[in-house]
Amino acid sequence: MTAALRIALVQMNAVVGDIAGNERAISAAIERAHDAGAQLVCFPELALTGYPPEDLLLKEHFLADARAALERIASSTTQIVAVVGYPERAEDVHNAAAVLADGAVRATYRKLHLPNYGVFDELRYFQPGERGATIEVDGVTVGLTICEDIWQPGPPLSDEALSGARVIVNLSASPYHAGKGIARERMLQQRARDELAVVAYCGLVGGQDELVFDGHSLVVDHDGTVLARAAQFEQALLVVDVDPVTVGSARLRDTRRRAPAAAADDRVDRLGSFAVGRPDGNGTPPPTDPPVAELLDPVAEVYRALVLGTHDYAHKNGFAHVVLGLSGGIDSTLVALIAVDALGADAVTCVTMPSPYSSQGTRGDAQRLATNLGVQLLELPIAPLMRDYDEALGEVFAGHEPDLTEENLQARIRGNLLMALSNKFGWLVLTTGNKSEMSVGYSTLYGDSAGGFAVIKDVPKQLVYRLARHRDERAGDDLVPAELFTRPPSAELRPDQRDDDSLPPYDVLDAILEGYVEHDLGREQLIARGLPAGDVERVIGLVDVAEYKRRQQPPGIKVTTRAFGRDRRVPITNRYRG
Amino acid sequence: MTAALRIALVQMNAVVGDIAGNERAISAAIERAHDAGAQLVCFPELALTGYPPEDLLLKEHFLADARAALERIASSTTQIVAVVGYPERAEDVHNAAAVLADGAVRATYRKLHLPNYGVFDELRYFQPGERGATIEVDGVTVGLTICEDIWQPGPPLSDEALSGARVIVNLSASPYHAGKGIARERMLQQRARDELAVVAYCGLVGGQDELVFDGHSLVVDHDGTVLARAAQFEQALLVVDVDPVTVGSARLRDTRRRAPAAAADDRVDRLGSFAVGRPDGNGTPPPTDPPVAELLDPVAEVYRALVLGTHDYAHKNGFAHVVLGLSGGIDSTLVALIAVDALGADAVTCVTMPSPYSSQGTRGDAQRLATNLGVQLLELPIAPLMRDYDEALGEVFAGHEPDLTEENLQARIRGNLLMALSNKFGWLVLTTGNKSEMSVGYSTLYGDSAGGFAVIKDVPKQLVYRLARHRDERAGDDLVPAELFTRPPSAELRPDQRDDDSLPPYDVLDAILEGYVEHDLGREQLIARGLPAGDVERVIGLVDVAEYKRRQQPPGIKVTTRAFGRDRRVPITNRYRG
Repeated sequence: MTAALRIALVQMNAVVGDIAGNERAISAAIERAHDAGAQLVCFPELALTGYPPEDLLLKEHFLADARAALERIASSTTQIVAVVGYPERAEDVHNAAAVLADGAVRATYRKLHLPNYGVFDELRYFQPGERGATIEVDGVTVGLTICEDIWQPGPPLSDEALSGARVIVNLSASPYHAGKGIARERMLQQRARDELAVVAYCGLVGGQDELVFDGHSLVVDHDGTVLARAAQFEQALLVVDVDPVTVGSARLRDTRRRAPAAAADDRVDRLGSFAVGRPDGNGTPPPTDPPVAELLDPVAEVYRALVLGTHDYAHKNGFAHVVLGLSGGIDSTLVALIAVDALGADAVTCVTMPSPYSSQGTRGDAQRLATNLGVQLLELPIAPLMRDYDEALGEVFAGHEPDLTEENLQARIRGNLLMALSNKFGWLVLTTGNKSEMSVGYSTLYGDSAGGFAVIKDVPKQLVYRLARHRDERAGDDLVPAELFTRPPSAELRPDQRDDDSLPPYDVLDAILEGYVEHDLGREQLIARGLPAGDVERVIGLVDVAEYKRRQQPPGIKVTTRAFGRDRRVPITNRYRG
Repeated sequence: MTAALRIALVQMNAVVGDIAGNERAISAAIERAHDAGAQLVCFPELALTGYPPEDLLLKEHFLADARAALERIASSTTQIVAVVGYPERAEDVHNAAAVLADGAVRATYRKLHLPNYGVFDELRYFQPGERGATIEVDGVTVGLTICEDIWQPGPPLSDEALSGARVIVNLSASPYHAGKGIARERMLQQRARDELAVVAYCGLVGGQDELVFDGHSLVVDHDGTVLARAAQFEQALLVVDVDPVTVGSARLRDTRRRAPAAAADDRVDRLGSFAVGRPDGNGTPPPTDPPVAELLDPVAEVYRALVLGTHDYAHKNGFAHVVLGLSGGIDSTLVALIAVDALGADAVTCVTMPSPYSSQGTRGDAQRLATNLGVQLLELPIAPLMRDYDEALGEVFAGHEPDLTEENLQARIRGNLLMALSNKFGWLVLTTGNKSEMSVGYSTLYGDSAGGFAVIKDVPKQLVYRLARHRDERAGDDLVPAELFTRPPSAELRPDQRDDDSLPPYDVLDAILEGYVEHDLGREQLIARGLPAGDVERVIGLVDVAEYKRRQQPPGIKVTTRAFGRDRRVPITNRYRG
């Protein structure tokens, strides 16, 4: 039995479709891992194409381009074994892990468990593999798994462990939602203990449209101890020595090991044995102590997800500057905070667009916030345009009282002005609607929802407050004007309007929405939870009827267990209520 | 051996989520089929819930409601056997066909082949069944299949036929695209000949969000003869006598029948034997000769799909009236024609919103068309609002030349006006953009694309002309002003603008788009087809970059082999080109 195995986990931010860029990043990371003395270096799931590549996977030339890049990476991979996620085109297409060593692609493992729920569509693209796989690196047997494979107890994990794998690596692209990181970590500890194996989890990091990948790469010992943890939401190279000998001893002591190894052997491919040695000398310690990064607290974690998601959406799509409407309310305040943290104050322009219904309070707060943040603030009053529309429509609307129409026009004038700034200066418009509003349709299509990226579209109103407070506290309470946390929410589209004129209080609303949207609870189950029957009835109706609006929203970052969009696919034409 | 079996196929328009309404329609149709002397009556796939119910299937109470409705239908089903599509909640959820007879649910067949490509997500919801199934109705063995099951040669179809089924029924919800009906018919003829069985295909009809189901129910004899065909795009009750004796004779003569029936028997569940008899007297002819409806010609077929899709989207969502901007161009002309055919002239308001760049020609044509169609025409000039926005933005834009910003503002003013009419009067806004424009982003977000339903979003520009001409010809050439067919297309957002200033000619553009969007061809493959390299390069770039716009479009009707939306899932953040 060999001594420690040095593993490097590359927590990288791959860009979907940027095969050339990802290729460069992978090659550079292999080099760095080699220089750090690693014998084995692992990359996230589909690191070569980014995740999820969606229907790009239907293009033959895309798959061929990915394969060509893989071969190029392999050709310069020596004195180290690299496990790289990529889409394999064989008779079918597979979500695969390629084993690169000695200058070539040596073998491939194919993901067994293909998720096809929630945001996932993997059965649309991939055929599942059929068997586990192991490689031997300097005498240590290492089992290969990809993402969902390790969420499922049993094969391939159990087969690989039973047939001798003392280390299980997992290549992942695991979309974030609040609390996912800690839940995933507990699951990995459980798997490590169950299989008596070291588990090395390599997570993708970065924002991709509506998803954020949180990184949070981990090495967990066979007894569940976290040996190393990369920081959440950052790129990292995690280098760790793991000890297969202790694993072996623990297995000898374990009386629970059930099936004979031979049975598992039949269900596992042995993909090859690689002699690497320590290129920089046996016995040298890893370049740094394996770091165990501290976990963020729950609110800080969501905040960081929103910052990373916003940063990556802007930068990966070529936007250097963003613009948003600052109303003096808590939603646009939070979006401004996030934008500044994501892109810097110089890259953010705020616009205040007061109407005759805007209060002095909100106007002053918007100005103070902009000053505190150090961002440019433009003022574009909309009263003249409101009058102009009234005139243009005067004849057609004669005899009809003002109603929601005129409120929506105000929001749409503002949307037009922001889009005009976007068109003229190439700025990305950030919209500021939260999930509670979006759920019940309390927003104006082409108005406040007009823009390129909806930063907080999956953030319920109560969490909006917590996030803004969290950021303000970090800044010593001098960023956000205090009234913003206490003033009753209002769209300010007519005199003395308040959100709770037309909606239940936000604690009730958010509780109904969480049950209905995230957990598929019906009317009766919600009422049984103690929620007011009238509110439940009304909110369900509002959510269902607003589906048409949500279809036309810009993308935004998923942070709950179920976001609108691909995560929740409901018909617009739908007569079911409940 | 018995004599003829009388089968009724109920080509119904089920509404998604309207379990109560669908239940009533199913019960009424069983009654009518019974009165027509049918022994067996079949309904489309998931007729009880509508198709596709999408994530409604994740709600336990939805499945329970569907089951309760099924039981109620069964309780009054006597003297006939009904096969009804519904989602079955067992240990898992299945896409199922329930066999109702003698007042109860007697048995269930579970769909084997679950499509998870294109617009389909069936593996998200369902577990596949494992075996074929047959029932015996008055001595005739009938095989059960659901939609995709019959598109796949082999099991369950071949097993059912081998184990004695002389009639194969297929419950379908098959989304329409141009030419799908005839392709499907040929496939069914092939299956009937291959299996030497009568094939009775019962298709769903109606519009559901972006999908139209074309009906086109069929009974095909074992030699491929079409015995009966229901009209496309209409509800129908098709009653046919089929002759199992001839099938038996043909099988005796056939030397190709390969496997012994016993082998197939093991793979087929015999779900029961039902004695019905002819309730209205043996030997009476069906109420009408089995009709073989004529097939629509290819352009008429697409036109009907668009009319039905528009009608159903409006009506199923509670809109009695629609509004659209009439520019005097061919796109809005076609949408107006479709709207009037779908909803009636009284239910359509057109709005002309001239700017200083609108030509006398287009303005006159819009007026003539509105007169010819007999629809209300409002005129809302936008020049004053254009000036007002210029003023509002004057200071911020100082030193910048007019550009696309000002063009987009014109479109957005028009969008706002239409939405204001929609808000004030409860009208559904129909947008008028075609697929060619939408592909390359030649439209203004929140401008011409603002609205509730995008009737022709999947119709390429050249097909737009053909459809308008088709409708005009049907009307004796006096509906559409002739200049509309010859004037070069223009957005009229600046003086003397023409589409082909900034886009390739539409024949080239549409050819590139068909290859790129519908068939996943890459740059090199398109050039190899003889398309100009420069245009190919440019169009691919435009299509990829416009994805963010398409995400915010209203739903519209799929008529090509691949529409934008759920049919083509590509990332916005995507650096792949080619």
